Amino acid sequence: MVLSQTTEYTLRSVVWLASHPDQPQTVQQIAKATHVPAAYLAKVMHSLGKAGLVEAKRGLGGGYSLTKKHSDLTILEVVNTVEPIERIHSCPLGRNSHSNRLCPLHQRLDEAIGLIEEAFGNTKIADLVVESLCDNSNGKPDRDLSCKLGGGT
Amino acid sequence: MVLSQTTEYTLRSVVWLASHPDQPQTVQQIAKATHVPAAYLAKVMHSLGKAGLVEAKRGLGGGYSLTKKHSDLTILEVVNTVEPIERIHSCPLGRNSHSNRLCPLHQRLDEAIGLIEEAFGNTKIADLVVESLCDNSNGKPDRDLSCKLGGGT
Repeated sequence: MVLSQTTEYTLRSVVWLASHPDQPQTVQQIAKATHVPAAYLAKVMHSLGKAGLVEAKRGLGGGYSLTKKHSDLTILEVVNTVEPIERIHSCPLGRNSHSNRLCPLHQRLDEAIGLIEEAFGNTKIADLVVESLCDNSNGKPDRDLSCKLGGGT
Repeated sequence: MVLSQTTEYTLRSVVWLASHPDQPQTVQQIAKATHVPAAYLAKVMHSLGKAGLVEAKRGLGGGYSLTKKHSDLTILEVVNTVEPIERIHSCPLGRNSHSNRLCPLHQRLDEAIGLIEEAFGNTKIADLVVESLCDNSNGKPDRDLSCKLGGGT
């Protein structure tokens, strides 16, 4: 719970695309780099395309690219294209007496959802690309982003 | 996403039981009060029983009760019986280079999951029962907890 596999796969793919701003990536390339099954990834790309976050270029050198700069794109925007984070605005039980105020349970749940929404809204996809937290055997930070996303061999 | 319907239904049921510490509640009673379909609720109760959070008393006056005081029980304990909140301890892509440190994406996701874990771990079920946030037409706080959970008519 909290994050579905589809959401996590989508984020992996977007971070991969963000690390290749001028190199459209094919489904096969993304699948290899992110360890997401190609058939699954095709659906992810379709959803991202429908939401306007990626565009496809056909032909030689074609593939998927982000439509926005990774410095303008947040985790929240990506997550919301797959499984929108929904705050609890009114009593899920439809109680009239709760129309203006949630009961304590739903208030606490809404606050928790709000924490996630805020954390995701404050994190740019660019932050996930530029940081270098890999722990290589040579002790040097990775320059190859494939490391961060499991690409390469 | 964030919270499944099963998790939310389970929490509703636990809060209802917590408001009836000395009155075992039948599936029908809980279903009516929480607006959770009875068949669904039977599964929820089964899961809670398996996890040791509720016990069933048979016969006249029988039903389900919590096994712990609501002041000792947190939202997190309840949620974890249904769909455990799982932190990201190691790279989901199995990268050796990430065995000690997560990549930025998974680090941020883990932090977000941690926020939820902390919020849920800090909230006792008792907090959801004793507060009175209902907004009745008469302006008085509800004494009848069924209001909080959608019970009654």
